[in-house]
Parts: sequence; C-alpha cells; structure tokens
Amino acid sequence: MPKREGVSLSVIKRLPRYYRFLGELLNRGVTRISSRELAQMMQLTASQIRQDLNCFGGFGQQGYGYNVAALHKEIGNIMGLDRHMPMVLIGAGNLGRTIARHMDFDSSGFRLIGIFDNSVHIVGQTIRDLVVRDAAELEDFCRAHTPRAAVLCIPKEVAFETTQRLMELGVNCFWNFSHYDLSLDFEGVIVENVHLGDSLMTLSYQINEAYPKTENQK
Amino acid sequence: MPKREGVSLSVIKRLPRYYRFLGELLNRGVTRISSRELAQMMQLTASQIRQDLNCFGGFGQQGYGYNVAALHKEIGNIMGLDRHMPMVLIGAGNLGRTIARHMDFDSSGFRLIGIFDNSVHIVGQTIRDLVVRDAAELEDFCRAHTPRAAVLCIPKEVAFETTQRLMELGVNCFWNFSHYDLSLDFEGVIVENVHLGDSLMTLSYQINEAYPKTENQK
Repeated sequence: MPKREGVSLSVIKRLPRYYRFLGELLNRGVTRISSRELAQMMQLTASQIRQDLNCFGGFGQQGYGYNVAALHKEIGNIMGLDRHMPMVLIGAGNLGRTIARHMDFDSSGFRLIGIFDNSVHIVGQTIRDLVVRDAAELEDFCRAHTPRAAVLCIPKEVAFETTQRLMELGVNCFWNFSHYDLSLDFEGVIVENVHLGDSLMTLSYQINEAYPKTENQK
Repeated sequence: MPKREGVSLSVIKRLPRYYRFLGELLNRGVTRISSRELAQMMQLTASQIRQDLNCFGGFGQQGYGYNVAALHKEIGNIMGLDRHMPMVLIGAGNLGRTIARHMDFDSSGFRLIGIFDNSVHIVGQTIRDLVVRDAAELEDFCRAHTPRAAVLCIPKEVAFETTQRLMELGVNCFWNFSHYDLSLDFEGVIVENVHLGDSLMTLSYQINEAYPKTENQK
C-alpha cells in the first residue's frame, strides 16, 4: 500500500472524481494519459493532479504519463471499492426507495443486504431483490449479519433514536440523508452527510450573485 | 446589501449550514447566541464563525452575540431564498420524482413550475400538483414561462443534448444529478452538481482508512 498520512480532505473529496474520469477514459479505450491532458478534462491544473496523485505514492512516469487502467484500479483500491461491506438501509419511503434502486452499491464499496421500514404499507414490498423488513427485526438481523454501515433515509425526528439503536448493534458508519448532524451526539462515528437542501441553496446563492434582483425588494 | 467581494467557496458552502442551524435555534425560541455557543453547536471555532460572518458585513455585537432572527433572515437574503425563481425539472424517473416530491423548492430560492419526461408511461402523471409534460413541449413552455433554472435528473447519455436545448431556451442554471460535467462543454453556466456516487465512495474511503482489510487481498 502506498503511504498516505495527512492526506487533506480536499484531495480525498477529489478521488471519486478521478475515479469517474479514469473510468470514462477506460471505456473509451484510452490506455495512457498525461497529467496535462487529464487536467484539461477535469478542469484542474497539471501540477495539482501531480500533487494529488503523489499523496498516494504517484503512478506517473516522466514522458509517458499515467497508465489509465492501473491508476483507476489503484484509486479504487485506495477507496476500498472492492470491499463489498455489508450495509443496511433504514427508511424505505420515496427517498430511501430511490437510493436503493438508483445507487450502484456493489461498485462503491458496499453490498446492500437489508432494507427496513416501520410502515405496514411498505414492509413486505420488494425493492431491488430485497424484501423490506419490519424495523422491529433490526436487532436480530444485525446480530446475524453484522453490517457495519447504514444508509439513513429517515425523518430528522427519529434519527437520534435510530442511530443509537444502530450504534448498539455495532453499526457506526453512516450515509446520512436525514437532516440531523449525527456527529454532534455520537463519538467515533464515520459519517458522510448528503444535504440536498444545502446543495439547492448553494445553487440559489450562485444565481443570486450572478443575477441580482433588479428591484431591491428588501 | 453588505459588501461581499472575494468570498471564498468554503464560506459559501457553509452558508446553508448556518442557515439550517439558525433556523433550528429560531424554532426552539432562541433569540440570540454568541459566536462561542454557535461554534460549539456547529463544531467550528468561534473565530471561524466571526470571520465567516464578517465576509457579509458582520451581524454581531460585542458582548451581546448574534440576533438569531436577523442573522437567519440576512443569510437567507444573501442566498436569495425568497426569490422563487421559476425552475423546471427534466426527467421524472425514480430520482426525478423523489426530488420533485422531497425538496422544499419554495424555501430554497426556487419555484418548481414544470416537470418533463419523454416516456409515455410517465407523461400525464401528477407529481406535486404538476402534471408531467411531454419533453417535446419544452420549447413552447420555456418561451411562455421563461425559467432560468433546471433540475437535470436524466441519464448521462442525453445530458449534453438536453442541456444544449435548455441553453438555447435561456436556461443556464442547473441543479445537475446526471453524471455529466456540464461545465466542460458549456460556458457561462451556473451548475451545482450532485454526485451521490461520489458521496458513497467517499464514505467507503473513510471506512477503508479507519478499518483496513485484515488480510491484504490485493
């Protein structure tokens, strides 16, 4: 494994994007690429790309560029995408169902093994080859299958209690769509928050800056 | 309007989070808060909060703290959340339907005025009081209602062509869920990308770092 102490969060956040672009190059049959070409594609600078990839040991050769397949594979390894970690999804309403159907868990490091809800209208439905289980079965299921990670597609109001239940069952890694900051109440959790509302507001900010209101209605 | 030249992207990205936390405080009846207390809630430092809010003119008073309602309102104004900009949504499959139903457009700067799809199975369905229109009607609709922004919930393969159509109709602001980097092909667009796959891979990375594989299966 290449050494990677002190890799900054911004580099980490760029890894999936490298992985996507390299995957596209692979699909197009491209076998090698210079940092300059990759930089142009990704709208970064060549020196930023060299710096980023050096954090992980560097994969380029002077005058040859990067081996696309090797770099793609290595970044995938660094992110643990081949680990198929068992994961449960809690909350199979609109959002949960869409996440379950839409995402490619298997290529992203996970394996979706159970979907839970507490609504009698939803329990028993089949989503992606999985029958939605009653949330009351969570304890038995987790003891039997020991997932470490959970997707939370539940309302904010029940997020604390659900997280607490999951933590007691050994689940401490969360892909969190609920509007609740887990890390404020639970220590030692690994959380990736998805705040779609924040993203939409960020778009609004950008538009508001580029095209201010013509009349000042404040 | 407070002056805000050269505000860094990281500050901008924090604005929605400030807005959410201040909204919660308001709901709990809190009328003022010190930068130290707000920092503790948000897991930032007090000096970072003072710096951030100073970018927008500063709203605090020494020894008094921030007026929660005033600050919440001002950050909302800065993000243009009261502008109700007309917006269309393209692609009413699983993801598009969920976005249409799940998001609070009205409180986030937008007004969803039209949903479009090209599937005969989806056109005519009602989602959130809007009847899904045939994508062929996009030109007529945009000429009549002049939306500036669009949500793209379409497959990558048709994203270029759809973006081109929308750009010609005066739509140049995108909330983009398709796995296609619009900004590479179109100049002058304002884009906020949502890459759920990248987020899931980032979670995988974090878990993989915290809990490396016990056997090295590489």
